[in-house]
Amino acid sequence: MGNAAEAQTAASYMAYEDFAGMTAAEARRHFRSGDYVGHTAGIAPGMLQGNVAILPAEYALDFARYCQRNPQPCPLIGVSDTGNPMMHTLGDDIDIRSDVPLYRVYENGELVDEVSDITRLWRDDFVAFAIGCSFSFEDALMADGIRLRHIDENKTVGMYVTNIMTEPAGPFSGGTVVSMRPLSKKDAIRASAICARFPHAHGQPVHIGDPAEIGISDIDAPDWGDKTEFRDGEIPVFWACGVTPQNAVRSARPSICITHAPGRMLVTDVPAWATDSKKPTS
Amino acid sequence: MGNAAEAQTAASYMAYEDFAGMTAAEARRHFRSGDYVGHTAGIAPGMLQGNVAILPAEYALDFARYCQRNPQPCPLIGVSDTGNPMMHTLGDDIDIRSDVPLYRVYENGELVDEVSDITRLWRDDFVAFAIGCSFSFEDALMADGIRLRHIDENKTVGMYVTNIMTEPAGPFSGGTVVSMRPLSKKDAIRASAICARFPHAHGQPVHIGDPAEIGISDIDAPDWGDKTEFRDGEIPVFWACGVTPQNAVRSARPSICITHAPGRMLVTDVPAWATDSKKPTS
Repeated sequence: MGNAAEAQTAASYMAYEDFAGMTAAEARRHFRSGDYVGHTAGIAPGMLQGNVAILPAEYALDFARYCQRNPQPCPLIGVSDTGNPMMHTLGDDIDIRSDVPLYRVYENGELVDEVSDITRLWRDDFVAFAIGCSFSFEDALMADGIRLRHIDENKTVGMYVTNIMTEPAGPFSGGTVVSMRPLSKKDAIRASAICARFPHAHGQPVHIGDPAEIGISDIDAPDWGDKTEFRDGEIPVFWACGVTPQNAVRSARPSICITHAPGRMLVTDVPAWATDSKKPTS
Repeated sequence: MGNAAEAQTAASYMAYEDFAGMTAAEARRHFRSGDYVGHTAGIAPGMLQGNVAILPAEYALDFARYCQRNPQPCPLIGVSDTGNPMMHTLGDDIDIRSDVPLYRVYENGELVDEVSDITRLWRDDFVAFAIGCSFSFEDALMADGIRLRHIDENKTVGMYVTNIMTEPAGPFSGGTVVSMRPLSKKDAIRASAICARFPHAHGQPVHIGDPAEIGISDIDAPDWGDKTEFRDGEIPVFWACGVTPQNAVRSARPSICITHAPGRMLVTDVPAWATDSKKPTS
């Protein structure tokens, strides 16, 4: 975590509020220059955002298989050419070495650093993967009038490892990680229908109701993120979560892996509702 | 084409009509035993069928990228482990070396053989890819009362190379291949809405109307399949086609590539409407 101090300093150049009304491309230019290392929820609303995992090519075919076999937690929206940091199918001029606000570096599965730019770490054998994330469907739910408490309370959504096992591929395996949002039963149904329209953002929920049925022993003790309060008549609604592939990557212990830092996503030029996860062409 | 005679002989053991009412698994057992080398349209209706491409591992990451970047022509529904012929995510006991009715073998992009079993050709470095096909959406259109002339007339749908370029990946590139069906304007709209529900079977059409706009100079001269007659008020409706990746594979000229023979698809245990292209779990 040697560069946390650098990250803190960089963060002071811009505030989250400064991004209101900016396009994805404009926002990425600020991320690239190191002006902002904060979270990307709500930035360039309506555009697909992505979890990021960067791996040496020797792991890439197995990781691509892992995503293909587990499309709900790992909806693959982009794969770079080997050694080429430009994610050209996801937008114009996206350099994956600098255009994410903040990165985490893992060696043999252990977190060793957090940095705002990975240009000095980039290698000719690296392959970058972008995987859809929940920010896109949260935008859609809120646009339809469904309140999300973790957003209202400015908390991080609660995430849990479940006993819903992913389909392994090579060294990648593990339980599906889910995010949980409390909703009324009526909103749970509406949310299921709305989210089904966003297969590149985890799609419909994977479970509703009793957390024990999917191996969660204490709903008040998430594995990541914050506890969320329940109100009368609300039930827990669980979505497959983009932390699943990160969890699989960590347990596979590749020699090196670079991911986005939690909440600091790749903001793409692809509309969230695009069925082909490609930037629009004229 | 040395084994074409063998294929002809094998074909005589079972007729297409014998498959009525059979499950996908039952049908595959007959394909495996070599009893049938015919087309699979209408066999195990409602189940996802797949185009097949088998490549050495050295090409597999680029081919996986090609499919990810071109999901309409190349909706990836399954990828085998390297050297493992069992397509375990698509069904129970699917052996890709024998469970497709008929295969084509290409060396350096040239067709060299057509065989009903590739067990003797299988190698430890082979990776098998399954890619969704149009049979699934044709079932859905007919179930909704839309007549498809090539089926009514027992012809092969007409297919055309277009100027809609695919997004390249490594050696794989080329124009999108489309299939064309003449429909009334009203049915074209209905078909678009229905097919959009089947992203793993090419999804909504890619073009409606003037063939010249997508680089087709003569609608009566398809590159593959049969010419289809137009009736008053009908317009051509074009869907992305699973011949696209085969075309890309042939132009990439890999040392070896094995595909299904035209119309002889992999019949899976996955419902055509499944959003995750995985066999149901209990």
